[in-house]
Amino acid sequence: MNLPDFYIDDIIKRALEEDINYIDLATDYLLDDDAVSTAKFIAKAEGVLCGIEIAARVFEFIDKDVKTEIMIKDGGKVAKGDVIAVVTGRTKTILKGERTSLNILQHMSGIASETAKYAECCKGTNAHVTETRKTLPGLRALEKYAVVVGGGKNHRYNLSDAAMLKDNHIDAYGSLTKAVEALSSKMGHMAKIEVEVRNEEELREALGCKADVIMLDNMTTEQMKKCVEIADGKAVLEASGNVTLERMAEIAATGVDIISVGALTHSVKAFDISLRIEK
Amino acid sequence: MNLPDFYIDDIIKRALEEDINYIDLATDYLLDDDAVSTAKFIAKAEGVLCGIEIAARVFEFIDKDVKTEIMIKDGGKVAKGDVIAVVTGRTKTILKGERTSLNILQHMSGIASETAKYAECCKGTNAHVTETRKTLPGLRALEKYAVVVGGGKNHRYNLSDAAMLKDNHIDAYGSLTKAVEALSSKMGHMAKIEVEVRNEEELREALGCKADVIMLDNMTTEQMKKCVEIADGKAVLEASGNVTLERMAEIAATGVDIISVGALTHSVKAFDISLRIEK
Amino acid sequence: MNLPDFYIDDIIKRALEEDINYIDLATDYLLDDDAVSTAKFIAKAEGVLCGIEIAARVFEFIDKDVKTEIMIKDGGKVAKGDVIAVVTGRTKTILKGERTSLNILQHMSGIASETAKYAECCKGTNAHVTETRKTLPGLRALEKYAVVVGGGKNHRYNLSDAAMLKDNHIDAYGSLTKAVEALSSKMGHMAKIEVEVRNEEELREALGCKADVIMLDNMTTEQMKKCVEIADGKAVLEASGNVTLERMAEIAATGVDIISVGALTHSVKAFDISLRIEK
Amino acid sequence: MNLPDFYIDDIIKRALEEDINYIDLATDYLLDDDAVSTAKFIAKAEGVLCGIEIAARVFEFIDKDVKTEIMIKDGGKVAKGDVIAVVTGRTKTILKGERTSLNILQHMSGIASETAKYAECCKGTNAHVTETRKTLPGLRALEKYAVVVGGGKNHRYNLSDAAMLKDNHIDAYGSLTKAVEALSSKMGHMAKIEVEVRNEEELREALGCKADVIMLDNMTTEQMKKCVEIADGKAVLEASGNVTLERMAEIAATGVDIISVGALTHSVKAFDISLRIEK
Amino acid sequence: MNLPDFYIDDIIKRALEEDINYIDLATDYLLDDDAVSTAKFIAKAEGVLCGIEIAARVFEFIDKDVKTEIMIKDGGKVAKGDVIAVVTGRTKTILKGERTSLNILQHMSGIASETAKYAECCKGTNAHVTETRKTLPGLRALEKYAVVVGGGKNHRYNLSDAAMLKDNHIDAYGSLTKAVEALSSKMGHMAKIEVEVRNEEELREALGCKADVIMLDNMTTEQMKKCVEIADGKAVLEASGNVTLERMAEIAATGVDIISVGALTHSVKAFDISLRIEK
Amino acid sequence: MNLPDFYIDDIIKRALEEDINYIDLATDYLLDDDAVSTAKFIAKAEGVLCGIEIAARVFEFIDKDVKTEIMIKDGGKVAKGDVIAVVTGRTKTILKGERTSLNILQHMSGIASETAKYAECCKGTNAHVTETRKTLPGLRALEKYAVVVGGGKNHRYNLSDAAMLKDNHIDAYGSLTKAVEALSSKMGHMAKIEVEVRNEEELREALGCKADVIMLDNMTTEQMKKCVEIADGKAVLEASGNVTLERMAEIAATGVDIISVGALTHSVKAFDISLRIEK
Repeated sequence: MNLPDFYIDDIIKRALEEDINYIDLATDYLLDDDAVSTAKFIAKAEGVLCGIEIAARVFEFIDKDVKTEIMIKDGGKVAKGDVIAVVTGRTKTILKGERTSLNILQHMSGIASETAKYAECCKGTNAHVTETRKTLPGLRALEKYAVVVGGGKNHRYNLSDAAMLKDNHIDAYGSLTKAVEALSSKMGHMAKIEVEVRNEEELREALGCKADVIMLDNMTTEQMKKCVEIADGKAVLEASGNVTLERMAEIAATGVDIISVGALTHSVKAFDISLRIEK
Repeated sequence: MNLPDFYIDDIIKRALEEDINYIDLATDYLLDDDAVSTAKFIAKAEGVLCGIEIAARVFEFIDKDVKTEIMIKDGGKVAKGDVIAVVTGRTKTILKGERTSLNILQHMSGIASETAKYAECCKGTNAHVTETRKTLPGLRALEKYAVVVGGGKNHRYNLSDAAMLKDNHIDAYGSLTKAVEALSSKMGHMAKIEVEVRNEEELREALGCKADVIMLDNMTTEQMKKCVEIADGKAVLEASGNVTLERMAEIAATGVDIISVGALTHSVKAFDISLRIEK
Repeated sequence: MNLPDFYIDDIIKRALEEDINYIDLATDYLLDDDAVSTAKFIAKAEGVLCGIEIAARVFEFIDKDVKTEIMIKDGGKVAKGDVIAVVTGRTKTILKGERTSLNILQHMSGIASETAKYAECCKGTNAHVTETRKTLPGLRALEKYAVVVGGGKNHRYNLSDAAMLKDNHIDAYGSLTKAVEALSSKMGHMAKIEVEVRNEEELREALGCKADVIMLDNMTTEQMKKCVEIADGKAVLEASGNVTLERMAEIAATGVDIISVGALTHSVKAFDISLRIEK
Repeated sequence: MNLPDFYIDDIIKRALEEDINYIDLATDYLLDDDAVSTAKFIAKAEGVLCGIEIAARVFEFIDKDVKTEIMIKDGGKVAKGDVIAVVTGRTKTILKGERTSLNILQHMSGIASETAKYAECCKGTNAHVTETRKTLPGLRALEKYAVVVGGGKNHRYNLSDAAMLKDNHIDAYGSLTKAVEALSSKMGHMAKIEVEVRNEEELREALGCKADVIMLDNMTTEQMKKCVEIADGKAVLEASGNVTLERMAEIAATGVDIISVGALTHSVKAFDISLRIEK
Repeated sequence: MNLPDFYIDDIIKRALEEDINYIDLATDYLLDDDAVSTAKFIAKAEGVLCGIEIAARVFEFIDKDVKTEIMIKDGGKVAKGDVIAVVTGRTKTILKGERTSLNILQHMSGIASETAKYAECCKGTNAHVTETRKTLPGLRALEKYAVVVGGGKNHRYNLSDAAMLKDNHIDAYGSLTKAVEALSSKMGHMAKIEVEVRNEEELREALGCKADVIMLDNMTTEQMKKCVEIADGKAVLEASGNVTLERMAEIAATGVDIISVGALTHSVKAFDISLRIEK
Repeated sequence: MNLPDFYIDDIIKRALEEDINYIDLATDYLLDDDAVSTAKFIAKAEGVLCGIEIAARVFEFIDKDVKTEIMIKDGGKVAKGDVIAVVTGRTKTILKGERTSLNILQHMSGIASETAKYAECCKGTNAHVTETRKTLPGLRALEKYAVVVGGGKNHRYNLSDAAMLKDNHIDAYGSLTKAVEALSSKMGHMAKIEVEVRNEEELREALGCKADVIMLDNMTTEQMKKCVEIADGKAVLEASGNVTLERMAEIAATGVDIISVGALTHSVKAFDISLRIEK
């Protein structure tokens, strides 16, 4: 998997326009056009790398002559001091692209590294970690890609490609069963329906409908276990709400299929990577 | 201060295109066009609100007839349970805009709330907290605005509006003094020059130049105190590197003018706000 | 269901830029700014209307003061001579928007009307007609919307929201079963998998996999009937290839669930509607 | 003639964004990055090819390393089974670009092939076939180019580059003569004026004006012949309205110069071409 | 005539993005949101006004509540001290839009005022002044509109809507006559052909072709007179090259139809207008 | 210094879309695709060249195979007849890009050449010439770059990167001193504050504030001299208002630091350069 260039380039362009505008005062006024440098992306912590091809593309976007040799690919584990990639080209270009390149790389690696911790908790179980729609404006694909790179699976992309029924939808039709029926009579055959349940009673109703996925909303671990028993493999079960890294292994062990974690994308901690420019 | 609408609208449009594409399956197929609702933005934690006008604009962007009454303005302190604003309009519109609106509001309030904690540590001192260029692609203005709302001050916007000299720039001219001279002979009179120093010797050289601002790079609190004495008010001093909330008060007490914190924007924790839709 | 305005406006803007550029020579040079007119959209044939809100929005996009009263909504049946809507406003605006408005309305109504004929053939059966990805560049959402308005259901929107396995995908894994397994171990839980089969043997293999939908590729009616028997409700069956209006009822009667028709969008016949401007 | 790349690329980008979004699930998850294939564009019917360079560019747009060898150029006649072009490159790229590439190629070849049939009817006469402004939003240049490739001539591009007077324009000035005078006193010297006439009387008035082109609106073949006699070469005559392929030769034989056919662009039948991927 | 809003808004947005970015430091930090002002556009010189509706729209673009009362419309003569329009609204909005609004208004009025001087020289003759394609990137429509407002006529908009034959085109076909024949056999019937001639011999050849317009390239006044005699009304004659205001009346008196002046758009002197903000 | 390509390309694309639309009638219909030419940019007057890399990029933008050899770089002095650069490639491409390329090159060289005259007047003094925000919409960076190339310095880019206090700002706070205090307590440490003064009294007040730059508004030469004495190096002084080339040397001799000239960008005279195409 890799994100399409036409997609990435819009993001890079926006970032460079913000960060450079029309001139890099220090760089453009002080450095020679023909000065060249080598710069190394170096990991400053332990985690999962993500976004290195995009980070490299930032420099190419500014100046086609810059070359990047990638030592560690997306999904690779990195430890403090690891050389991730080596950029060679005009010093001016490297200095102009540095901040934008790192901002993207650190954000994506932050997501992948955090996802990897949650995925680790799922080992030996049937469960997978997934992100939510709580992504930052304009960065959804980048963030979803990073979740996959970190070992997670992607939830639906948007409101068009799968349906999740909430209270307001159900109330409009009087019951969950009627709402699911109405929806599946109108929706295309390639889209799935997910419904939220808060207790066993709702779960039983959902199992009786054509719902493809059932979300167990804010349940205790005990409740989830019970739900897994009741469902008995008849629908995909997604645990959601208050999922922390501490609780993760416990939830994964309940037998649910999917565990969604909003914090993977709404509260990202940048993964520390530096670009060391050598003369 | 408020961000220009033409600026905000591009961000909202991008986010809605990601989140809706062409249809909200559940909402468009199940709800009546003329069903109306009232929805309340409610704080789920304690912090500083930011982005409520933009969050409200998301709904207007989808449907001009939605109205939002704002109870708490940007910069207002909120506590768990506070009603921030009330949205009234088509239920369909509220459901379609909910996620995008919250994603922006929670991100901006997360930054403002965190900034406020750092700003609090500066009370009674001369220091101010500021963000860096470590912002997310396409969101720089939103994030800088949130820093101001949280009680911080903005650093330069980009590489065009002020200059910061790094090693590579200095090496190209042989010395800091020569680099600053070269730069100030070329740069416009409205742009400031900042230089990084790592020790007292470099500080003394920087004070002898026309540098407007001097960054104390990764110094201990003791080193900073010494630098403040040496500078004696002759230049603006910015502390940078490894600034945590724990160290903040101590750094602010050294007498530096500005303390820059990358984490304000590169590692944002979403501030918890919900939208409760009432029937 | 209605398409989001921010989506529609991009299409309208592109169309008006093509059709007007900077001046409407005849209209701008000859008509008074304050001349007003009433214009009626009138059906010239029998069919299903689609796109009238978008057609009306074209005029508003040029000039906010134009008002359109809509008599027949999207999905309404129209016959020759029916008045669909009445536009009132500056004559200049009506003349400038006329062609763009009609071009969109006739294209969408053409799709809806054709879809309705196919949908009619499905009456009394379990089958539904759907479009394919054979849409015109930049118009996919408009065209998919028109299919729904005409009584069809939508297939997947794009390559991201559901997967369809083709020979190349299967060959890469040695067998259909292995390919489906590999894919479902990686893909998110909200996306469906469809596989193409060309004979009973492949169908049996597909039924043994986790494929959600099975496409019967270019089969005769007899073959389809046999497949329906074999599948016995264990997967959604989609008939595809060489589907004409003549064969449609026969195919629908075989018991398949979905019948996809490329011609619905790749070979659209404009539905005849005129705009009669009254002085 | 070839369409500018900066023009084409916007259309390709829009189409790929619609069709791929951020991932091709089946292709990205199942195929190796370094698998390569050869694929052949093959005609499935008889007609005139159009858009092959654009179809080839779709693949390059996704991945610069794909190469396309073109056997039959735009304007070339193709018969069932003809190999039009051969694409070589990553299998992933070919699968991702296939649908978008074919959608454009089939639409443009559909227009060129249909135009060629009308142009064929003009052989041995002075007449030429032309399209109208009844084009699809955002695709006007593509469609006009296809008309030329098919052997037609282009009508005006938009309302800015030539003027066509309609009833509303004429009524505003009291008479056709006065309207044409008013317009030509204001309009630039590089733009032509066309007027519509419905009978001989109006034709005579139009001939007395500075109108460059006279449109014979919805006339019978007999009426057209009479108009050609009356005009006697003093103006360019355009036949318009209810022009079908059946009537075309007859109309061309009347002596008119131009015959405009809305259906060339408003009701396009895709020309059948497949892309056969070889392993 | 007025330029379409969707056209203007792109230009305004670009200009405001350049001029404001995300904050107007002085205005946003110092002024109250609810402070209101009245501001007057006042002419500082004598000339022809152009662009006042666009200038007014700049403020509305920032803030829908601003109202502008226009006293003098586009095309109106203004003298020093004349009040052109009065803007009422938030002081913040007026200050933020001031520079962008004036930049556009002064540029367009500069063109209109200069055009008016050339047009004045044509009084009593058959000649009209026209601009060339020597316009500024992204501003062509604005500039062409200003020429019309100043009393000139527009030349072709671009290379697509009319043809001008140059040496390279003619050489490719061996002679002017052959090139014009080739071109008119391919080009659409709504586009005109112009050819450049440098002497009487070339003029005679051009008159024998189907050229609609003949450009007299860099001729003396005497040569032009001779050409007018020779042409004897058989083609539109355009004088071009080294046309100054001093020579204009003399050239207009030769009998040519059109006189093109590159300087109208490539060397514009801003027309002095101020915005006086009253408290 | 050179402008970023992603910045330039937007301007080139807009200009080519205006100038070519979808076809260059004469060129596309008359010339062979494989005809090649060499073309020389030749100076027709004496001045300072600016924009040659952008002018060259116009051709590359149309067709990657065109090559340009640049003899004279930006900032180079040119005299009538000097060969600036030689373009080699398809004749079609050269003809299509010619006008757009020259329009940009002549505008930028016009600004650089005029700036150079003002800069010349500053020789032997401490003064530098600078432009204002009176730039053309969408062209600010191009114009600011040309000022630097001509030997000037750049003023602030926009309202976000530095503050200039005007009457309205000052009135809102009761005094200049209070306004500057308020502003500097809120603004970031990297932005400068400039204030306008009209007399000695205001100057003295401004010197007492934290204003970084003081603008002497519309003063006589004598007044300026007096202000320079009073300021005595305590602030940067900018002379502004009614600065003509005639007065420039005199103003520069007063001792002010910066002299801003609106006409550099609001009233640009194109610098005459031709592109001579050789067969």
